[in-house]
Amino acid sequence: MDDTTAEVPGAADENPVVIVGGDAAGMSAASKLKRERPDREVIVFEKGDWVSYGACGLPYYIKGEVESLDDLVSIPPEKFRSERGIDLRTNHEVIEIDPDDRTVTVEPLGNEDTETFVQPYGELLIATGARAVEPPFSGMDLDGVFTLHEMDAAREIRTYLGLETGDEPDHDAVAIVGGGYVGIEMAEAFAHHGLGVHLFEMLPHVLQPFGSDAAEVVEDHLREQGIRLHLNTGVDGFLPRSAVETDAGDADDGFGNGDAIGAVEAGEDRFPVDLALVGVGVVPNVEIAEKAGIETGPTGAIATDEHGKTNVEGVYAAGDCAEARHVVTGEPDHVPLALTANRAGRAIGSTLAGDATAVGKIAGTAVLKAFDLEVARTGVIDPERARSSGFDPVSVTISAPTRAHYYPGGAELQVTMVADATTNRVLGASMVGEEGAAKRIDTVATALSAGLTVPELEQLDLSYAPPFSPVWDPVLTAAKVLAGKLEPDED
Amino acid sequence: MDDTTAEVPGAADENPVVIVGGDAAGMSAASKLKRERPDREVIVFEKGDWVSYGACGLPYYIKGEVESLDDLVSIPPEKFRSERGIDLRTNHEVIEIDPDDRTVTVEPLGNEDTETFVQPYGELLIATGARAVEPPFSGMDLDGVFTLHEMDAAREIRTYLGLETGDEPDHDAVAIVGGGYVGIEMAEAFAHHGLGVHLFEMLPHVLQPFGSDAAEVVEDHLREQGIRLHLNTGVDGFLPRSAVETDAGDADDGFGNGDAIGAVEAGEDRFPVDLALVGVGVVPNVEIAEKAGIETGPTGAIATDEHGKTNVEGVYAAGDCAEARHVVTGEPDHVPLALTANRAGRAIGSTLAGDATAVGKIAGTAVLKAFDLEVARTGVIDPERARSSGFDPVSVTISAPTRAHYYPGGAELQVTMVADATTNRVLGASMVGEEGAAKRIDTVATALSAGLTVPELEQLDLSYAPPFSPVWDPVLTAAKVLAGKLEPDED
Repeated sequence: MDDTTAEVPGAADENPVVIVGGDAAGMSAASKLKRERPDREVIVFEKGDWVSYGACGLPYYIKGEVESLDDLVSIPPEKFRSERGIDLRTNHEVIEIDPDDRTVTVEPLGNEDTETFVQPYGELLIATGARAVEPPFSGMDLDGVFTLHEMDAAREIRTYLGLETGDEPDHDAVAIVGGGYVGIEMAEAFAHHGLGVHLFEMLPHVLQPFGSDAAEVVEDHLREQGIRLHLNTGVDGFLPRSAVETDAGDADDGFGNGDAIGAVEAGEDRFPVDLALVGVGVVPNVEIAEKAGIETGPTGAIATDEHGKTNVEGVYAAGDCAEARHVVTGEPDHVPLALTANRAGRAIGSTLAGDATAVGKIAGTAVLKAFDLEVARTGVIDPERARSSGFDPVSVTISAPTRAHYYPGGAELQVTMVADATTNRVLGASMVGEEGAAKRIDTVATALSAGLTVPELEQLDLSYAPPFSPVWDPVLTAAKVLAGKLEPDED
Repeated sequence: MDDTTAEVPGAADENPVVIVGGDAAGMSAASKLKRERPDREVIVFEKGDWVSYGACGLPYYIKGEVESLDDLVSIPPEKFRSERGIDLRTNHEVIEIDPDDRTVTVEPLGNEDTETFVQPYGELLIATGARAVEPPFSGMDLDGVFTLHEMDAAREIRTYLGLETGDEPDHDAVAIVGGGYVGIEMAEAFAHHGLGVHLFEMLPHVLQPFGSDAAEVVEDHLREQGIRLHLNTGVDGFLPRSAVETDAGDADDGFGNGDAIGAVEAGEDRFPVDLALVGVGVVPNVEIAEKAGIETGPTGAIATDEHGKTNVEGVYAAGDCAEARHVVTGEPDHVPLALTANRAGRAIGSTLAGDATAVGKIAGTAVLKAFDLEVARTGVIDPERARSSGFDPVSVTISAPTRAHYYPGGAELQVTMVADATTNRVLGASMVGEEGAAKRIDTVATALSAGLTVPELEQLDLSYAPPFSPVWDPVLTAAKVLAGKLEPDED
């Protein structure tokens, strides 16, 4: 059954590479492998309709800046099949992995004529992604309560709001539960349609991974945009319209039944809403892996080595279902983001083609647009997290202009920078402002990968011209101030 | 006379630190030294009126986006004196340095009552800057022929064009000689006022340090903006209006005498113009240093060590008059830019305060706005230059979008990336596009400082969100393609 050699995976195998999951990691691996080794058979089983899609674009589809869900697809399924020679099977769910036999059991969906079958594999890549957390709120099954992790959910939200007719929505208020990326991007999308937006966050601040200094700027901005922010507020559940005694007596407007959401309950308070979006995080889809004896790590995602291999011979994992190594802490971490998935998939494709390639480390670099703000982060910002990884964190927050003081336009950029007091090594940073955060964070991300110290960062020769930066870029200014705190003057 | 100790410069001296030149390097050094050591006496001699000004803003002043020359001043002279305790003397020219006696000879300018005097120093910083090259063109002394390196020249240009009256200029056409930063920024400024612009460049391309791939994009854009580009065209000189037989017979319009420029001569061709701006580079002001036995390096600028010290005991040099060490080649180089001057000045201020601080290396990172384009560069791009430093350069040029394919707006960014085939180390890059070049170049600049290889660059965890980048940032895409060229597939 398994006649691969130790050196080159699959070099002499009779069995195909099987990939479970057809989004970023899976399709990147399939494409890279077929490009390097067109002779290898590659089968991708994807349980849904969609492959290789940009879920990050869903808020912009709901906002209306992206016209069609199809626009979010990078490469259409036909092209993977015809041009890249990948045996891509959508609506096929892998329900079991047998690592001893090197087989997977596959259930075709939505086609009653086709029976469950067993597919042998030479090597297997688990790229099952993650799914939205469904918290144990009452009323999660009411009409008008959504999570946003799937393409189709986005269309349902637009339909529910009446946006598909091209009109402005016939609803008044929505609730977003969770102040993460999705929550904030969706606040912008809903507000764009004239909806009143309640945003609920259990923690003291939105955007927890960005740190409180950046979050406070975002929170002020959200309030300026009319978002009703409920921080430190745990949601208990959702009430049907039939159970809500509204003051305005409009309990039946546009709904016709009592199974639709009418309010959010949070402690003593009730907030009338017509729709709720729950975005409280994602969990990796690891169930079929775990059943097959494939180990998960401390984060709950699938544990992998530097080449994306799991503990089971011949089985790899990549993307939102898998851990990756953090470039600052050196520890396994789970930051399910698009680049990580694409990069790991591509690397595993190379490795399967015989060119052992590291999947790369992560810095947790992220950016989002929050109305008129750019908000970015990289590395380790949270002092507790830094201490638990053995660092002695010191941080500064500065504000600096994004252009020369005399050049028109520009804005203040707030930069928080964190370093280890023992080694002076840069640990992380956040940035927030009306311009210049998104790609400036990459300077710090690069410094993290290279293990630069604050004095080394301070010495970087960064670009300057009046329309684009002050002479001392905000990154350099933050490093200067942080250096002063790391090595206080003796006098 | 000299009772400083070896360990801490000036710790016990009676003599002040003297700084020659009051722009970026000089004032940064003075400010840092006084902050750390308020007890030390610091005298700055500046031969002009202006100190601490942003010469990079002059094109935007001429364009009209910056209202007043005073706006370009970072910190007014009074503030250096009153708040920072610096003995700043404008209109004082240092005409001689005597390193044996540790004195400088100073000539007060524009005040006939004050006589030349001798000032002893404990340590000396030469921060004399650079000046515009005045090529041996005929007619350089005609009215309407300018160089742009001094604040006052910018005001004279506006006055000459009649812009100070608030009207649009009463002239028709101008010539710019030299397709460097200044030439291109000034093309934008002149065109903004409705002037026809001839831009002359001796070499095959504008923006030589950016490489031909980036330059060609800029050249196409300049032509689209109506700039008449004359590449491979050496200018011979300028002719007075009195000598120009214009077809339109308007030789006297608005001028009144024959001493004003009327045409540019280039080989067989004559181009009627009302003004010429000569921007063919700068030369470091090293004359008083050389007379005092202070050595210049291979570039003609003052040779310095890692702390900015010259070959002469107690004498430092920084800014546009001094060399710096290149982070890629390790060789001395002369790239007179604002950040280098500020950083070296500040470091020398620290060193003089007793905290030995490296002036930092340079990568030649630069960016400019060329009408609607951002054009950026860092490191070593020219293959000849790379080879002369012992590298085996390989380069790629790619084009990639600045945003997710489905997100509105965005533009193509062209990235050229160069690496050494022997070590795979990244050597340099250029970028050009309508958005996203200016601060993206800093990612590569950081990689250069850290000595990253192309595979390491390819593994960076850079930021992604649909409004700001595709999943694979253009930097990563360039690195991927370059990696493929460095390690070609065996099959």
